[in-house]
Amino acid sequence: MEFYAEPVENLVAELCRLPGIGPKSASRIAFYLMSVSAEEASALARAIQELKDRVSYCGVCFNVCEGELCRVCADERRDPSVICVVEEPRDLIAIERSARFAGRYHVLGGAISPIDGIGPDELRVRELLGRLEGGTVTEVVVATNPNTEGEATAIYLAQLLKPLGVKVTRIASGLPVGADLEYADEVTLGRAMDGRREL
Amino acid sequence: MEFYAEPVENLVAELCRLPGIGPKSASRIAFYLMSVSAEEASALARAIQELKDRVSYCGVCFNVCEGELCRVCADERRDPSVICVVEEPRDLIAIERSARFAGRYHVLGGAISPIDGIGPDELRVRELLGRLEGGTVTEVVVATNPNTEGEATAIYLAQLLKPLGVKVTRIASGLPVGADLEYADEVTLGRAMDGRREL
Repeated sequence: MEFYAEPVENLVAELCRLPGIGPKSASRIAFYLMSVSAEEASALARAIQELKDRVSYCGVCFNVCEGELCRVCADERRDPSVICVVEEPRDLIAIERSARFAGRYHVLGGAISPIDGIGPDELRVRELLGRLEGGTVTEVVVATNPNTEGEATAIYLAQLLKPLGVKVTRIASGLPVGADLEYADEVTLGRAMDGRREL
Repeated sequence: MEFYAEPVENLVAELCRLPGIGPKSASRIAFYLMSVSAEEASALARAIQELKDRVSYCGVCFNVCEGELCRVCADERRDPSVICVVEEPRDLIAIERSARFAGRYHVLGGAISPIDGIGPDELRVRELLGRLEGGTVTEVVVATNPNTEGEATAIYLAQLLKPLGVKVTRIASGLPVGADLEYADEVTLGRAMDGRREL
């Protein structure tokens, strides 16, 4: 038996597809939307539609963007000799927030994960190789996540790109700022020790 | 500086208004919507719009419904002599799921909470009194939440309705099914003891 009116059931079902939203949060959101003004709910519906209508992927680095090129690729002050490889556009944003990288990006669209059937062909590796052809790029910083898939992708890229005469680097792994040594896991601590630098 | 393309920023801002959605979940959802097909994203946008266009509140009990009357109020097999008072439509759904109540409902639209400036006038108490006028109703079951606001509302309703010759009852408070006595808080255990029944 259906308990909610059909449009409510329908919205709950649609919301449940979203990442991190289960049936309880979905019905909470649906009832919240019932309670707000028609304009506020329409603003959300419109924002979703606009996203699909106006936003696409950058033709060069596959970051999300409006138009042909993303903000980073369109910015001529960015150093074209260094490319930072990330898994997803939000990783790119995270690095942009740190304001410590002045080069260009390349969004792979994921990481190598044989279990999920994702190999190099499912990622934008070919496009990355294409960008290295001109000889402008001298360094590729691999900023995939420091987990199994991200590490595997980093190793794969290193083996693929080094023979082309490009310097391949990996972002540092170690203790996050503000962490307690006492509670750090041994793998992270080991990495922090391996990556120690002279002060 | 904005990091995302404008439509992305805009959607993230709209999603952040939803209950339980912070900036991180919002951008996760936005990027998820970027990755799905245009039809799937439009289905969500449409579901939100349909909710506002088609769903309103029942003219009798203020449950959510399509049309004039909700499913419960339109169902003539439901006992009109017992009204169960709940705070929100989703509480009504929760009770319907238990399949242990065959009467009608009344949705207050919240609970008395002086701190939030919500008194009886902000709730649908007047409408409840109106429903008691015919003399058909013999019992009002107060099923507000067993927290401070819900208890205050229950006490208020009991004082208001008892002089009208209506039996006012409160849903039982005690240990949830499957709970461990050992880990129950003392207030709940005290309630469970007070409410003990002969087997």
